[in-house]
Amino acid sequence: MGRLTRTRPVVKVRTGPDGRVVRRSDTLAVEEPLEVRLGGTAYLVTMRTPGDDIDLVHGLLHGEGVIASAEDVVLARYCAGTDAEGHNTYNVLDVSLAPGVAPDGPIRQVVMNSACGLCGTTTIEQVTSARRHPTTWREPIPVERVLEAPDRLREHQRAFDKTGGLHAAGLMDADGSLVCVREDVGRHNALDKVVGWAMREGRLPLTGCALVVSSRASYELTQKAVLAGAELLVAVSAPSSLAVELADEAGLTLVAFVRGESMNVYTHPERLDLAAVGQVPVG
Amino acid sequence: MGRLTRTRPVVKVRTGPDGRVVRRSDTLAVEEPLEVRLGGTAYLVTMRTPGDDIDLVHGLLHGEGVIASAEDVVLARYCAGTDAEGHNTYNVLDVSLAPGVAPDGPIRQVVMNSACGLCGTTTIEQVTSARRHPTTWREPIPVERVLEAPDRLREHQRAFDKTGGLHAAGLMDADGSLVCVREDVGRHNALDKVVGWAMREGRLPLTGCALVVSSRASYELTQKAVLAGAELLVAVSAPSSLAVELADEAGLTLVAFVRGESMNVYTHPERLDLAAVGQVPVG
Repeated sequence: MGRLTRTRPVVKVRTGPDGRVVRRSDTLAVEEPLEVRLGGTAYLVTMRTPGDDIDLVHGLLHGEGVIASAEDVVLARYCAGTDAEGHNTYNVLDVSLAPGVAPDGPIRQVVMNSACGLCGTTTIEQVTSARRHPTTWREPIPVERVLEAPDRLREHQRAFDKTGGLHAAGLMDADGSLVCVREDVGRHNALDKVVGWAMREGRLPLTGCALVVSSRASYELTQKAVLAGAELLVAVSAPSSLAVELADEAGLTLVAFVRGESMNVYTHPERLDLAAVGQVPVG
Repeated sequence: MGRLTRTRPVVKVRTGPDGRVVRRSDTLAVEEPLEVRLGGTAYLVTMRTPGDDIDLVHGLLHGEGVIASAEDVVLARYCAGTDAEGHNTYNVLDVSLAPGVAPDGPIRQVVMNSACGLCGTTTIEQVTSARRHPTTWREPIPVERVLEAPDRLREHQRAFDKTGGLHAAGLMDADGSLVCVREDVGRHNALDKVVGWAMREGRLPLTGCALVVSSRASYELTQKAVLAGAELLVAVSAPSSLAVELADEAGLTLVAFVRGESMNVYTHPERLDLAAVGQVPVG
């Protein structure tokens, strides 16, 4: 759609010996609202980078537990939202669900529903009891495949180098091929786009596969990886405590701080061939 | 509350000539759900780093348009959510609102409500028409004050250096003092905590003040800055297109990519003393 980036004027300021103030054109990551409707009724609004909206809405509805497969969506089309000049904004997407498929509530419940005694354990049980897929990982994979993943993700990021403002998510299949990369101002949207693509390609659950994210590993991203049935989540930056607890409980291998030749394996290291690197500590 | 960080075991892997696999203890940023109730009824759940929850809920309800001042909240207290061992989780906060104060809907509407013809312009009009405060900025401030802001923010970040996983937001007053810094796994939470603190201190609207964030400038963060009445938003990393458009329209000075001696001024540069740096371009 050609709407990943947009140019805006900027005043660039530099102090010090080379101090100067110049006016330039700057390339920004586009952020626009997407309203998702279910059967004509407003369901949620998310701020996203336009493009791959059909994948996004599939992944998003999957993460919310509304749909389980691509067959649960009969039709997804842009409805006639127009801007002041009468052009379609492509910011309103109406989804027709198959008979019997419906959300639990009229509006997105942020992260989960309400229950007293709310704590991390409760939350994690909700996710892990809902979906847990058996592993198909027959032998440990080379550590290098994980270490290279962020660089390979970056190679596919068309817009990041121009804007510095886009996150990316990628799907690495059992052969180590990066088969899908998506970018978005929101890291959760980028992952939703990848999961939605995989769903529409009939690849869910993602047994044997790794998801790679350019960001930190939050609870929400880890939850999406678990629900998609991935076996490995590779994050460039730090994980949160709850992300690690969820990955541990759900049987997901969580690797974070993947930088150059080093990385931190927080959970389930058995899927990685650590013996090839050095002696593996016990316990 | 001492719950900003938590230690977990980690397997650290390094390849290359110094290749080794070691088991260590790692410090993680804590992420836990906070359920906010209004008068005993579930309102929303957000994933946050525990601590300053009262500030968080004030800022959050302000950003959602539920409350306008600290007087709109009669009482905010942790209700009796308990974990498996019977300890209070401090993850459920019940807020009693003053008579006549109520949210528009029963559940948080993500970012905004639904309307056909949805586009950035509509969104921005909703924000800027709702709240726009006059400036009290009587003379341009030195560029150095902005350039130093991220480093000064970092000095106050107690947990970041240990975890690499926490965002921070800070409030810089008219004298250039950093009067409040808050950390959270969610950048929006960090800003909500600062705005909530300011509200409870009777400092809203933030005329004459700057908000500083360790992250990118998204639409949502910019919206919160506008609603709080700040005059300057300083972001370490990239802004999104809609953030710039909103700042432009709302009269907010948006500075991003603030790194060392350089920065990009995207909107309303008139609040900065650019003439002291070099010739200011016209147009």
